[in-house]
Amino acid sequence: MSKKQKRYLLGEDEIPTQWYNIQADMVNKPLPPLHPATREALKPEDLYPIFARELCHQELDQEHAWIDIPEEVYDMYKYYRSTPLVRAYGLEEALGTPAHIYFKNESVSPVGSHKLNSALPQAYYCKEEGVTNVTTETGAGQWGCALSYAAKAFGLEAAVYQVKISYNQKPYRRSIMQTYGAQVTPSPSMSTRAGKDILTRDPNNQGSLGTAISEAIELARTTPNCKYTLGSVLSHVTLHQTIIGLEAEKQMEKAGEYPDIVIGCFGGGSNFGGIAFPFMRHNIKEGRTTRFIAAEPASCPKLTRGQFRYDFGDVAGYTPLLPMYTLGHNFMPANIHAGGLRYHGAGVIVSQLLKDGLMEAVDIKQLESFEAGMLFARTEGIVPAPESCHAIAAAINEAKKCKETGEEKVILFNLSGHGLIDMAAYDQYLSGSLQNFEVTDDDVQANLDAIE
Amino acid sequence: MSKKQKRYLLGEDEIPTQWYNIQADMVNKPLPPLHPATREALKPEDLYPIFARELCHQELDQEHAWIDIPEEVYDMYKYYRSTPLVRAYGLEEALGTPAHIYFKNESVSPVGSHKLNSALPQAYYCKEEGVTNVTTETGAGQWGCALSYAAKAFGLEAAVYQVKISYNQKPYRRSIMQTYGAQVTPSPSMSTRAGKDILTRDPNNQGSLGTAISEAIELARTTPNCKYTLGSVLSHVTLHQTIIGLEAEKQMEKAGEYPDIVIGCFGGGSNFGGIAFPFMRHNIKEGRTTRFIAAEPASCPKLTRGQFRYDFGDVAGYTPLLPMYTLGHNFMPANIHAGGLRYHGAGVIVSQLLKDGLMEAVDIKQLESFEAGMLFARTEGIVPAPESCHAIAAAINEAKKCKETGEEKVILFNLSGHGLIDMAAYDQYLSGSLQNFEVTDDDVQANLDAIE
Repeated sequence: MSKKQKRYLLGEDEIPTQWYNIQADMVNKPLPPLHPATREALKPEDLYPIFARELCHQELDQEHAWIDIPEEVYDMYKYYRSTPLVRAYGLEEALGTPAHIYFKNESVSPVGSHKLNSALPQAYYCKEEGVTNVTTETGAGQWGCALSYAAKAFGLEAAVYQVKISYNQKPYRRSIMQTYGAQVTPSPSMSTRAGKDILTRDPNNQGSLGTAISEAIELARTTPNCKYTLGSVLSHVTLHQTIIGLEAEKQMEKAGEYPDIVIGCFGGGSNFGGIAFPFMRHNIKEGRTTRFIAAEPASCPKLTRGQFRYDFGDVAGYTPLLPMYTLGHNFMPANIHAGGLRYHGAGVIVSQLLKDGLMEAVDIKQLESFEAGMLFARTEGIVPAPESCHAIAAAINEAKKCKETGEEKVILFNLSGHGLIDMAAYDQYLSGSLQNFEVTDDDVQANLDAIE
Repeated sequence: MSKKQKRYLLGEDEIPTQWYNIQADMVNKPLPPLHPATREALKPEDLYPIFARELCHQELDQEHAWIDIPEEVYDMYKYYRSTPLVRAYGLEEALGTPAHIYFKNESVSPVGSHKLNSALPQAYYCKEEGVTNVTTETGAGQWGCALSYAAKAFGLEAAVYQVKISYNQKPYRRSIMQTYGAQVTPSPSMSTRAGKDILTRDPNNQGSLGTAISEAIELARTTPNCKYTLGSVLSHVTLHQTIIGLEAEKQMEKAGEYPDIVIGCFGGGSNFGGIAFPFMRHNIKEGRTTRFIAAEPASCPKLTRGQFRYDFGDVAGYTPLLPMYTLGHNFMPANIHAGGLRYHGAGVIVSQLLKDGLMEAVDIKQLESFEAGMLFARTEGIVPAPESCHAIAAAINEAKKCKETGEEKVILFNLSGHGLIDMAAYDQYLSGSLQNFEVTDDDVQANLDAIE
């Protein structure tokens, strides 16, 4: 790693006190989500049975550009924020690029990823309205860990449905959740009707985010004082993640630069939106021309190969219909290591922005992502999460273009988490046993046709 | 975890620029290490074949209290330092103690522990004198990861001998070392004479730190431009770790407090000495009365049950004879999860200080250590390394005494690392399958008698 490492931190009094709601500034607002039963435009009240009320309002708020961060959440943010903005001299040198590469290091949170930025306010708002139990689903476990931590912080009981294959294959994050006091159940389970239905049909079902979401929602609906929480996709989750970009904006100012390109990996959109939206407001309002690039896996290419349409957020069709780029809610992504990016759809804000040409998307193959992650680990010293490797790969591609053109562009990407609990994936990469998975336009069309 | 978390950081210009060498201020200096062949007092030159020259001089320096941190090391320190000093309000509340508990969070380094503080200067001094290859041994892998990182930073090739049972049972840290580009060999191996001898006698030998040290030293001795490095025990390693206590001193000042008790877990002594010695100088020079407590495992109790005498640092007797508290260099500690504390001896400085009553030691049983670690994780939000759990347990014991007496003592302990890669240990604790291991005075005497 470079000997010239340089990081920028904010003083405690410089940490932003509000989140940024880009919906208020968008010229073309996102289309409304539709109630799954009535197919009418969703109102905040329709979501009350599932989410804390404040979150229901944040979800659909197209008026207020700035939302105050509650004091108790702010106090918890200060325990790990600001996260460092780092000039990646080592990576620049290794690439021989004239580009200036910066990354925002969200891996320094106590749970190792950006997920805590939304878990804390979600748990807080639940607590505030008298909720005692929260539930959620998790795949590899980044979100589940964050929610377990936040629940403990605000004195709530947490029940996490973890995709069964991850529960068995990646036991470390399950253990972390249990260490934080959460109850973790492999999904599908016999504890819900949805789970029983699946297991009756297919006793060996290994689960998916779709099955786990259905179980968690059912638990929230059928348990008094229990609410459901979600780690990405939804607009209020992305709202909370804008703390990343708002900090980065101040830190870039300290570095005396402004990004020409902002990059995030893309699962449902929350870490991407979190770093991108605060900068994007200057494009919208002041005519800046920064490019925003979402880096998704080639095996789950909703932004680059999906279609913009109304679709469900889960396999069973329990969620509202969302206007989004989707591969179809029945899409089963390949079992890549970037578990956090294995989702069929994109958040409604990002979908509208992509449709309107305000941002771009690229797809990254699994081997390319790990190649990028290895170079990053050896030049910057941090082993990145498999998800974050996609952002690194996209940043490297842009930096290589700069090498060709000689342009001294400023590239900023979000390092959403570290990969210390994903070393089995690196082992496979180092031993040559990892492979690429790709999805063609025909695959997507066939999948979408099947749910017509 | 507490909602009142408070951390103290230093500005970039406040990070200490020198290490503190307590040997210069000790009234009773440590006895000299003896050459293993001649049994004469060791001179720095005797160590040249094994260590970088500057480190040989630091090892035996009893004159200079302050050693400048080289600029290139300082630049790398700034990438993760200062580490936070945290007031553990959550832990205090859970215990109902009037004590003020602080911890220094060394887990935030890129490799997750304090080990990098010495790996960086060791690699730097090697590089400075034209060395191209470094080698070392590692157990669970904390030190091996740190050295692999530091070697990569200074352009050196690293060869790490990892205790075979850890190599196979705890593959994550091995993968991290490989990701950083190090060559990792399970020890005993067929690559050295020492390894071959062991495997010829016992083909299924699972290795120990003793076998790995012997292999690493042999590689350094027989390879041109290759030096050996060590992660604890030696005085120069502890010197580098004083950055921890020097920072903590400034941070405690920001908090408006001064510690009555300073605690570190104890393997060879480097993290304990690192946090303790800078405060201890005020006891020595200004008559302060702070207590210093080393927390060691009951299964490897060199400080509480060992004897002060000359002994070897390794099983084979390759190292100098060191004047230290020891269980005998042939001691085989039980296979506890705190792999970093499984060492038969203590550094020469700590041994002299303990003999002179300038510090204390306590032993902690394995179950008590994990109980403390669980409480810490659930109140402070950080899953501690099994080693660090020992320091936490000792801090909790002191805080409970304060609850009885009503004293508002200020307790500071070092959180030497996080346990995210040790979750299998927590799993065993949570499932009730962990056990205690104890060593009696008779065990120790029998062991020492055997090497007479």
